[in-house]
Amino acid sequence: MDSMNGIDNVPETATRKIKAFFESAPPLKDVAEIETKLKEFVYRNSSSSENGKINRVVCVTSGGTTVPLEKRCVRYIDNFSSGHRGAASTEYFLKAGYSVIFLYRRGTCQPFCRSLPDDPLLECFTSTDHSSIQVDPSHAEVVKRAISENRSAVNGGFLLKLPFTTIFEYLQILRLIAGSLRSRGPSAMFYLAAAVSDFYVPWESMTVHKIQSGSGPLDMRLAQVPKMLYVLRNEWAPVAFCISFKLETDTDILLGKADMALKKYKMHMVVANELSTRKEEVIVVTEQEKIAVRRDKTQAGADVEDPLIKLVVDRHSAYIKHSDA
Amino acid sequence: MDSMNGIDNVPETATRKIKAFFESAPPLKDVAEIETKLKEFVYRNSSSSENGKINRVVCVTSGGTTVPLEKRCVRYIDNFSSGHRGAASTEYFLKAGYSVIFLYRRGTCQPFCRSLPDDPLLECFTSTDHSSIQVDPSHAEVVKRAISENRSAVNGGFLLKLPFTTIFEYLQILRLIAGSLRSRGPSAMFYLAAAVSDFYVPWESMTVHKIQSGSGPLDMRLAQVPKMLYVLRNEWAPVAFCISFKLETDTDILLGKADMALKKYKMHMVVANELSTRKEEVIVVTEQEKIAVRRDKTQAGADVEDPLIKLVVDRHSAYIKHSDA
Repeated sequence: MDSMNGIDNVPETATRKIKAFFESAPPLKDVAEIETKLKEFVYRNSSSSENGKINRVVCVTSGGTTVPLEKRCVRYIDNFSSGHRGAASTEYFLKAGYSVIFLYRRGTCQPFCRSLPDDPLLECFTSTDHSSIQVDPSHAEVVKRAISENRSAVNGGFLLKLPFTTIFEYLQILRLIAGSLRSRGPSAMFYLAAAVSDFYVPWESMTVHKIQSGSGPLDMRLAQVPKMLYVLRNEWAPVAFCISFKLETDTDILLGKADMALKKYKMHMVVANELSTRKEEVIVVTEQEKIAVRRDKTQAGADVEDPLIKLVVDRHSAYIKHSDA
Repeated sequence: MDSMNGIDNVPETATRKIKAFFESAPPLKDVAEIETKLKEFVYRNSSSSENGKINRVVCVTSGGTTVPLEKRCVRYIDNFSSGHRGAASTEYFLKAGYSVIFLYRRGTCQPFCRSLPDDPLLECFTSTDHSSIQVDPSHAEVVKRAISENRSAVNGGFLLKLPFTTIFEYLQILRLIAGSLRSRGPSAMFYLAAAVSDFYVPWESMTVHKIQSGSGPLDMRLAQVPKMLYVLRNEWAPVAFCISFKLETDTDILLGKADMALKKYKMHMVVANELSTRKEEVIVVTEQEKIAVRRDKTQAGADVEDPLIKLVVDRHSAYIKHSDA
């Protein structure tokens, strides 16, 4: 999301660019419905919990955003992301007592469903006759756990799932969430694991119909998506604890870019990960430190998100304490 | 897939371009496994059926292909397609007694699953406690039918599912299928409903690492995907019955383009559909006719694929008869 340019020119241009981006974006459907859900969710989770601690809430973003290339959309550019990181992190945040707003790309990995096969309904169930269905014994445990843990989090009011597809939907819903969490002050967190498009075709300059393929190669000019992290941190959610992610395929530039993002957007933490090793290890970059977080290889099925969320929760506690002081 | 240019220059250039495309494509994984599955499937379905009729087999392609923009793929261009047409058509082909090779984009709509919600496992099931799960009564019928009909088609050996993601995988598997169906002569059909990318970044000119976003707008030049329909029809499957699809968002150019595809690639049928009305009506274009096929609006839940496959099967019968004569 960030550039290697200097950091001085961000404030004056970012706000203007983002204003233009939102003005030209196709309007979000179901705004009222999303606002109602958010209001109810925040209300339900805003009272102090039984032990007198303020309930914490995190917005976890997950999966990649798409950029339409045509208004009546046939083609689009997508950012690869299985949503595994966001889904796993959501599970550990719930375990740590957080309420979670899970802003996810449609069709990506869901919390508690990570060990299921691609198409669980067709792959995990058998039918003896038309009147009864059964879970395959080999999948029974994971299927039961997925269903019961998801239900208990959703029905208990600890997990609110909001789907998106395009970059336009993602950013507009994120802004609504930030607005609804403002009252929560430092006990709110943004954990921005989604893979957000860097480039897009501005809506007003987009072709209406399918691009025709008759006349040789296709030349495209894509504009940069304005740096949303800056506006989130400074305008939408100035008091919340903010964590962004930096994914690269080239290790040599990863830490430099993570460090730049931390400074430029004043993030509290940046999680740096390299595409090929991201399930084994991440580097957490803060103003003072660079901390390598690795999954526990001695335990079967251990996730890197387990120690990662422990570290994040720990730093969030310190942040809340410091804000109260 | 086609161009509005003249049709004279196709033969000499198509073969050369496709050869270059395959030579530069990343090699397909699991070739041996796919070949074994195809061999077994074709063998099982090649004997005459009980009533003495030759068993027919159709390859239905479904969903959109992706075009990677980077070798270690973070970004790609995708063609929109829910896979609904391919899934529905597969059901009607099975009903008509065909064996079906379903070449589908990972994650798209599966046969018998069209009326299920997005995430059937989490939306259709409840868990009373950790040891038992139940289907919601409101979803029970569709869930049971999906599971039992899918199982019976797959276990009965009438339905072989092969997934793809990229344009490279799609075209390489399609070529393997064509090879395996060659022995079936005119009783084999290709029903090419997948939304295939028109443009791609040739593998050898692709950047290895994630494209960096620091330096202003991104200019991209995409090459045209070679016209595969020509090679399929003339080299890979010269005796099979071939149906291609033409999707446009602009009605004014749709029929002209469908007609051009029919002539240029010598398809037996082209199914023309307009993005916004494609679930209500299609126009089937053959050498002699243009036939409007509409869903039966007097019946709740009726599909346009029901009359469409009836027409296709009818024309395929005539084709087989004519080939035998």
